[in-house]
Amino acid sequence: MRATVLHGAGDVRVESVPDATLIEPTDALVVVSRAAICGTDLWPYKAAGPDDAGRRMGHEAVGVVQAVGAEVRTLNVGDLVIMPFSYSDGTCQFCREGLQTSCVHGGIFGTNAVDGAQAEAVRVPLADGTLLALAVGEDHALLPSLLTLSDVMATGHHAAVVARVDDGERVAVVGDGAVGLCGVIASRRLGADQIIILGRHPDRTALARELGATDVVSERGDEAVERVRELTDGFGVHSVLECVGLADAMRTAIGIARPGGAVGRVGVPQDETIPASVPAYFANVTIGGGLAPVHAYVEELLPDVVEGRIEPGRVFDRVAGLDEVPDGYRAMNEREAIKVMVRP
Amino acid sequence: MRATVLHGAGDVRVESVPDATLIEPTDALVVVSRAAICGTDLWPYKAAGPDDAGRRMGHEAVGVVQAVGAEVRTLNVGDLVIMPFSYSDGTCQFCREGLQTSCVHGGIFGTNAVDGAQAEAVRVPLADGTLLALAVGEDHALLPSLLTLSDVMATGHHAAVVARVDDGERVAVVGDGAVGLCGVIASRRLGADQIIILGRHPDRTALARELGATDVVSERGDEAVERVRELTDGFGVHSVLECVGLADAMRTAIGIARPGGAVGRVGVPQDETIPASVPAYFANVTIGGGLAPVHAYVEELLPDVVEGRIEPGRVFDRVAGLDEVPDGYRAMNEREAIKVMVRP
Repeated sequence: MRATVLHGAGDVRVESVPDATLIEPTDALVVVSRAAICGTDLWPYKAAGPDDAGRRMGHEAVGVVQAVGAEVRTLNVGDLVIMPFSYSDGTCQFCREGLQTSCVHGGIFGTNAVDGAQAEAVRVPLADGTLLALAVGEDHALLPSLLTLSDVMATGHHAAVVARVDDGERVAVVGDGAVGLCGVIASRRLGADQIIILGRHPDRTALARELGATDVVSERGDEAVERVRELTDGFGVHSVLECVGLADAMRTAIGIARPGGAVGRVGVPQDETIPASVPAYFANVTIGGGLAPVHAYVEELLPDVVEGRIEPGRVFDRVAGLDEVPDGYRAMNEREAIKVMVRP
Repeated sequence: MRATVLHGAGDVRVESVPDATLIEPTDALVVVSRAAICGTDLWPYKAAGPDDAGRRMGHEAVGVVQAVGAEVRTLNVGDLVIMPFSYSDGTCQFCREGLQTSCVHGGIFGTNAVDGAQAEAVRVPLADGTLLALAVGEDHALLPSLLTLSDVMATGHHAAVVARVDDGERVAVVGDGAVGLCGVIASRRLGADQIIILGRHPDRTALARELGATDVVSERGDEAVERVRELTDGFGVHSVLECVGLADAMRTAIGIARPGGAVGRVGVPQDETIPASVPAYFANVTIGGGLAPVHAYVEELLPDVVEGRIEPGRVFDRVAGLDEVPDGYRAMNEREAIKVMVRP
């Protein structure tokens, strides 16, 4: 079969690889209907060292179950499923608490011995605990939005939940990438009155407005902090969704949080430390977040997708066949595309 | 009158100063019954530059109202009052939300133009919003415990609240100073099942056990993390109270937090950044806390003090007259005393 393999910075290739197969009796084999390229895929794309063997990429997918192992109980061949970016057993204490990203037997697709989903098919470990079967057909027009539930929309929602977005409150979203845009959707969905997006790409902030943002701040650093304060009676916002992962973005996030406010961070942090410790302390600003427990959120988000109340699939502004995936990486890395959907 | 003045590192003196008086019509004048030396007083005691004019020290007190300004409505001469370490108007949006430390007209005793409470008397700004009148007499045996409600016990409680301590959960307290000990009291009070104190002073950890700690970890750094994990089935604790303020303590705090857990930090941070950003992210550990909104907590804690269910006054292991205050600083700085109560 064909699959995406990263061999080093800027060197992503679509190659012929051995067909995905069942290995463990708890596996499912899923034929990929749609996959996606994630902002986090760009970190190794920018910085990975040369790697002859290569890393199999992709952790977002919807697909159709083609085969299941002997111990799989809840899935059937032919099911259309959402594949969250992390696999999880569904039974450990963390899964039971809804923090499947900390599953004691879990991991992330495209790391270690578990291959990625930017491919024709993917082996899914711990299938009963990992996959979510859907009641819609494969050709459904909702596929792009359903695909976002495997990562990006659930991640924007996680940022909003951790940032304690609530009815009538003020929210800021730092970052106008696909996660930030989903953060806007999530914040509106949770009832925020004011949603300020911080971003500098006019096409993206225009889309953010369509998705629910009430204000756009294109300044950066101290000027951005000042501008947000002007927009919020001087005190900043209750909730900040930090959707970038760089220290400067976090410094801004803490700077625009209202005293007693919360920052939900979902951008994978690229630094060893969190900045602005002292201002956060004196203002009692809480900093939380991390990998989104996608599995825990799908049940809540799915009806809004299926009934069309939210349209997170709008973050995809390009569709690529498998052979076009390398150009998709390039386009996202050069900010030419917001997010690329892959149609193997 | 006599008052405590810091003139530089290691140079704290008790001097004759002009009598405290009412200045604003919203002031109260309070004769200090008991004050205290705080761990945070030791930071300038260790590091302040030479200062001829000096800084008036002390932000914890109980005392008796001697006079009130014309606009003071809720206090009467003769009232015994708790003076929280920060003054606040009681009416702004942050005070109404219970975050009096972010009061738009507030501040901290012993900073700027507001003098400290390690003195015979103290001027209290915004008296109606700041002071809490008590229904007990000045000579009451509960005075030491009541005094702790002005800062240290409320601060330990704040750490526990932010760390989401709850019935039946596992808690760790980093630091065996007076705040850490109050964190133990707060954690037991909130129903924690297991309370691990991390500290290296046998007298303090012995007291922690009396106050409710179930385990003592005297190791530091990676060894402390390993030891706490051994004590917690391998995963760490739900709630960590970080009661030190140094980067190493925070690194340990994040290291011993269970995935999905929370760190409540109340030690004034001595570094510009929070360490261990990446591990905190991957485990979805939340970091919050800051200055404790004492005023908001007194109503909840007071009945337990008055009825003897908690005895936070036990953190005082030395009583000093005003002239002995400099030696009290020395004793706390050399870890000879846990916390010094001042009896002017």
